[in-house]
Amino acid sequence: MKKTICVALTNRTNYSKLKTVLFELSKYQTIDCHIVLSSSILLERYGSSYKDLEQDGFKIDKKIDCALMNDSHEAMAKTIGLSVVEHATYFARRKPDLLLIVGDRFDMLAPVVAAGTMNIPIAHIQGGELSGTIDDVIRDVLTKFSSLHFVATEGSAKNLIDFGIKKESVYNYGCPAVEYISKLDVGDSFDPAHITKKFKNPIHVAKDEKYFLVMVHPDTTNERDVDMKKVLDVISGFGLKTFIFYPNIDAHNAEIVSSIAKYNNNNNFFMIRHMPLEDFVYVMAHCVCMIGNSSSGIRESASFAIPFINIGERQIGRERNENTIDIGADYNSLEATIQKSMNQKVGNSNIYYQEGCSNLIANAIAEYIGVEK
Amino acid sequence: MKKTICVALTNRTNYSKLKTVLFELSKYQTIDCHIVLSSSILLERYGSSYKDLEQDGFKIDKKIDCALMNDSHEAMAKTIGLSVVEHATYFARRKPDLLLIVGDRFDMLAPVVAAGTMNIPIAHIQGGELSGTIDDVIRDVLTKFSSLHFVATEGSAKNLIDFGIKKESVYNYGCPAVEYISKLDVGDSFDPAHITKKFKNPIHVAKDEKYFLVMVHPDTTNERDVDMKKVLDVISGFGLKTFIFYPNIDAHNAEIVSSIAKYNNNNNFFMIRHMPLEDFVYVMAHCVCMIGNSSSGIRESASFAIPFINIGERQIGRERNENTIDIGADYNSLEATIQKSMNQKVGNSNIYYQEGCSNLIANAIAEYIGVEK
Amino acid sequence: MKKTICVALTNRTNYSKLKTVLFELSKYQTIDCHIVLSSSILLERYGSSYKDLEQDGFKIDKKIDCALMNDSHEAMAKTIGLSVVEHATYFARRKPDLLLIVGDRFDMLAPVVAAGTMNIPIAHIQGGELSGTIDDVIRDVLTKFSSLHFVATEGSAKNLIDFGIKKESVYNYGCPAVEYISKLDVGDSFDPAHITKKFKNPIHVAKDEKYFLVMVHPDTTNERDVDMKKVLDVISGFGLKTFIFYPNIDAHNAEIVSSIAKYNNNNNFFMIRHMPLEDFVYVMAHCVCMIGNSSSGIRESASFAIPFINIGERQIGRERNENTIDIGADYNSLEATIQKSMNQKVGNSNIYYQEGCSNLIANAIAEYIGVEK
Amino acid sequence: MKKTICVALTNRTNYSKLKTVLFELSKYQTIDCHIVLSSSILLERYGSSYKDLEQDGFKIDKKIDCALMNDSHEAMAKTIGLSVVEHATYFARRKPDLLLIVGDRFDMLAPVVAAGTMNIPIAHIQGGELSGTIDDVIRDVLTKFSSLHFVATEGSAKNLIDFGIKKESVYNYGCPAVEYISKLDVGDSFDPAHITKKFKNPIHVAKDEKYFLVMVHPDTTNERDVDMKKVLDVISGFGLKTFIFYPNIDAHNAEIVSSIAKYNNNNNFFMIRHMPLEDFVYVMAHCVCMIGNSSSGIRESASFAIPFINIGERQIGRERNENTIDIGADYNSLEATIQKSMNQKVGNSNIYYQEGCSNLIANAIAEYIGVEK
Repeated sequence: MKKTICVALTNRTNYSKLKTVLFELSKYQTIDCHIVLSSSILLERYGSSYKDLEQDGFKIDKKIDCALMNDSHEAMAKTIGLSVVEHATYFARRKPDLLLIVGDRFDMLAPVVAAGTMNIPIAHIQGGELSGTIDDVIRDVLTKFSSLHFVATEGSAKNLIDFGIKKESVYNYGCPAVEYISKLDVGDSFDPAHITKKFKNPIHVAKDEKYFLVMVHPDTTNERDVDMKKVLDVISGFGLKTFIFYPNIDAHNAEIVSSIAKYNNNNNFFMIRHMPLEDFVYVMAHCVCMIGNSSSGIRESASFAIPFINIGERQIGRERNENTIDIGADYNSLEATIQKSMNQKVGNSNIYYQEGCSNLIANAIAEYIGVEK
Repeated sequence: MKKTICVALTNRTNYSKLKTVLFELSKYQTIDCHIVLSSSILLERYGSSYKDLEQDGFKIDKKIDCALMNDSHEAMAKTIGLSVVEHATYFARRKPDLLLIVGDRFDMLAPVVAAGTMNIPIAHIQGGELSGTIDDVIRDVLTKFSSLHFVATEGSAKNLIDFGIKKESVYNYGCPAVEYISKLDVGDSFDPAHITKKFKNPIHVAKDEKYFLVMVHPDTTNERDVDMKKVLDVISGFGLKTFIFYPNIDAHNAEIVSSIAKYNNNNNFFMIRHMPLEDFVYVMAHCVCMIGNSSSGIRESASFAIPFINIGERQIGRERNENTIDIGADYNSLEATIQKSMNQKVGNSNIYYQEGCSNLIANAIAEYIGVEK
Repeated sequence: MKKTICVALTNRTNYSKLKTVLFELSKYQTIDCHIVLSSSILLERYGSSYKDLEQDGFKIDKKIDCALMNDSHEAMAKTIGLSVVEHATYFARRKPDLLLIVGDRFDMLAPVVAAGTMNIPIAHIQGGELSGTIDDVIRDVLTKFSSLHFVATEGSAKNLIDFGIKKESVYNYGCPAVEYISKLDVGDSFDPAHITKKFKNPIHVAKDEKYFLVMVHPDTTNERDVDMKKVLDVISGFGLKTFIFYPNIDAHNAEIVSSIAKYNNNNNFFMIRHMPLEDFVYVMAHCVCMIGNSSSGIRESASFAIPFINIGERQIGRERNENTIDIGADYNSLEATIQKSMNQKVGNSNIYYQEGCSNLIANAIAEYIGVEK
Repeated sequence: MKKTICVALTNRTNYSKLKTVLFELSKYQTIDCHIVLSSSILLERYGSSYKDLEQDGFKIDKKIDCALMNDSHEAMAKTIGLSVVEHATYFARRKPDLLLIVGDRFDMLAPVVAAGTMNIPIAHIQGGELSGTIDDVIRDVLTKFSSLHFVATEGSAKNLIDFGIKKESVYNYGCPAVEYISKLDVGDSFDPAHITKKFKNPIHVAKDEKYFLVMVHPDTTNERDVDMKKVLDVISGFGLKTFIFYPNIDAHNAEIVSSIAKYNNNNNFFMIRHMPLEDFVYVMAHCVCMIGNSSSGIRESASFAIPFINIGERQIGRERNENTIDIGADYNSLEATIQKSMNQKVGNSNIYYQEGCSNLIANAIAEYIGVEK
């Protein structure tokens, strides 16, 4: 008999982690995979990134509109409450044998609380990591509700077991997003023609031109985390082209968004709400230096041997590759650090990479719900 | 300046844990304590136990009606979703400096998810215990969202620290409910006149008459947990009077409730939806034997030196006093075990008891939010 | 191309009105009819009357649990709010070409507000009637949101047109419930074997024995409507068997329910939570007298030539058949009125009856959405 | 004893209608007036118009965030559902003796359904008007739920009475917004220094310069209502400065917003999200011609003797002053009509104006709830 898996995604980074796993699961004739989206992945304001799934041929089973038009913490809590109600309705209809989730973001609480209450087993990708922020709480809560754990490093596996999770439910197969991007052909140097997405304000970066990549997310535990204004001030001083990505949806992103907006007239700066994963990886692979507090800097940039300058405390506990340079809140050192990193070679080994990761994950899920390919 | 604490209660057992702590907090002129109730504590069907707070002189600041009229898992999940929305509204109005919670029940997820998302620090009483059921998941989730942890035993403290909780936020002060009941004057023997609550169907237990106490809750992780029918069959065979308590609100309590209902015409059986804590403790203190899977058997009955026969797996991991006899699913042994326990003496030491517990907890909370008495 | 109709039902009386229309619609190969239930029709406490649909072979597409466990007005309002959310989710999935509704009860506001906001045309059965209560407001609101109106009398048609409704959208085809019950074979006299429903407390009414039928609903506009206690006091004096029906779900039914409960030990009284429609009609057809404030007394009892004693103001504006005797709040006259009515012959003509009603309604709906049989 | 009135506002036009009534009510020592806001009046995207209340010294008692980030009809319905839940919570706390509302917009359904279900009497300003759109349905629904009706014209009063509303509950006191603006001192000619609001993109209209005013709202009943592109094409041909106002929140405003956005680089066009009422009236009073489908054109522009060119069907049934010129969907005639209207004198009489309107309304409300000044 066929089994049903529901896959919940809530933001743009979820999909990069799940993409290859979804392809592997789709090879199973015995599994019906239903994709349910909610929160920022659906929002125009965050790049309508659900369209990436559609372009890759995935059918979206249900879009749950639950994000309230307000960035307050009260609205954020209500968004979760409403999303719990809606996911309960959805799961009651689909009756999944398993819910597959990924990550550590607050909006994933909703499908998980609903599924947990409804006795639906949950498989979680990317538990056990530490970043030193509220994300750690959410990540561990997602872990607690889950029955199957796919972690990316030995350190994460150990964390989960210390945490009371049964060893036999923890699988260290590496990170599927890192596996995926490591196999992308990014060529030897930057060519703007390679970027598929068309932007309203065209991006003027020439072939082989040097540029920066900046990606900062709010840290909801601290009222004030990265001082985006200072970061952009320093970077603008270099006079290089810069790709600046908008932050995730969160209670305090207004500040970061407004700092970005102030540079609207800087012709070197290109503000990006969303790029398809492949474009993003291509841009990352050829930048002279990545700056920010995004987990993609910590986890993914190493595969392309580019330096990552990590700012603030959002990633404080996460296992690092050798390409990460931490400056904390020392903005005075930022200019020198960038200068130095631009002239330094780093290797491309990546502790988050394992061969065959997505295939192994899909197989373990299939075994858990009792189906064969 | 005055500080504000919100205290969330969701079921009848919450209050017994918080009662003395609330009295201690009320001694602080510098603290405004607001009580917010939701879920089963408000329901007539579960004894309208919120009235106990009112009788003790506590003002209820907000009653949140969120329980849907259906025992399905879908309805349970929606109840939580709606409760998150309502608690967010409430916290936005009260702007508490701290939320105080207790326990391990699913309906406490709602205030905690709301407060967690709204960056309100949470103090949690009774973390770190193990019972071997879904309650463990909820309890650990509540712990993860909390900043201050009041545990009842050394074992619980150790569990939390292994779990990644910072040692300095864990306080082992014992269980405030055990402290409270240990100080109640229960006299030397049973006298029905001592019971204050008046029942529709009067309870005919004579002075010094022998009787049993039965308390079984559903275990939502297992479709079928305690076989209530078998339990009541065995007990009815003894021909003794028996106090039988209705289960907590949960997706699967219908089965237990219906097993109880079948004995409606057994004149030895008294079905109790709710008793004030003091009456309950009085009944517990003088029974010949307590039978069931309730945590009050594990934690509280020892203080009165009465045997507790623990059935099923609901309390499997919880630290035990010497008065607990585990029979698991071996219903054939129940009769003999009851027989034996009725003729055995047990001591009244209790690992959950510590002198001054409630006062210590209130002081630690006050210190955390920065006020003096 | 096939068209989709959603049919929303919220309480037990809805189904009696829609039953034959649903059968007529099911004859259309070109129409997919989806039934969505919410509110009291789903509740055990109100007889789980959704089971009647299942027994008649109708598939229920979606059950929306939205009733909160509290009879307060606040909870009632939230039940509607939650139900609007859930109906919006449901309609977004089914994308109906039309929503079919019936009646005048507050819980029908939810599907109607959702459909109205989502530009889904609504066909309403039973608009234009007057009962002198809050139901009038709800009924007119349902009318305002509707595009197609099936009324039961000339008076109702006129009311709608005065009300600003376009004449060409008003169809006076009679009441489908009256059509249905008028065709039931109720025989010449009462035989208890004819009642199909089995009750926990069996009904002891002998063949041809005389009995009363009492049906009272709360009137939510008035704090105190029918004085149920006085009604039952008078009736009990007659010493006849009596079928007493529980009221609809409403904010103030607690009082009526408790008045009924006081007579639990009167062996002449049979308290009925729910009966299948056919059983109810059979009981109505042979009672010596029907007493209460239910619209079924006003509309349906006439078909069986039995007297209906109408109490209070709930039906004050509704068009009456000749079998209705109004006593208002004059409880002193109740005994004499019952006495008199038992000895009086009334005719069986019924102003709510029209031949072929359900077929005409189904055809008009089909024409509106543009399909042929 | 003091009485409590809650006043619900949902969009920017509500406040202009209520402003003077709120001032009149504030003169009553015996009345506590609590203002509750929800929906678009709170949204930055629609000009955060709640700030106007704050600037006028009104305290906002509760802001209800309920607008979902999506313009779909499904999201709009859920916004209402959530808003019903939140208003029920709010009313349960405030226990108002009366709810005061105004207008005809869908988001006002939420407070009204909540209050109606909770038996709170409602006073409605501006019932009985006709505009030929879905607004008519909402307006009549609001009327049906209300107990006290303040209409603006004899025609509206007659409509309500035909509609079944009791004559003695209908008060024709004129429109309080028209009363208010008619008393504003707008001087003899335009002076940009008079506009108090500061805009990000400054408005370059010189003293005494001629300009247009354009205000178009979506008509949710018709998929395509005003063709905004055609309107702006014609207007841009005149080469005059133009104030263009963003539409209300509604399911289909995306199209209008995007038509406006296309003219971002037209230096004659000034796009306005929101202006304080006084600024708006000043701009309206001196324009050469107002164009659009807004009720302010129909109702208010006459007081300043300026021509209003009414496009589409949104205002089809509303009573007109002599300054209104209807062109329907005949966009070809728009240029000539504008040309002609610019050279024509119109009088300043206004059928919506009555002296002392707001005072009379406040007094009638006070009498209804039984208080004296």
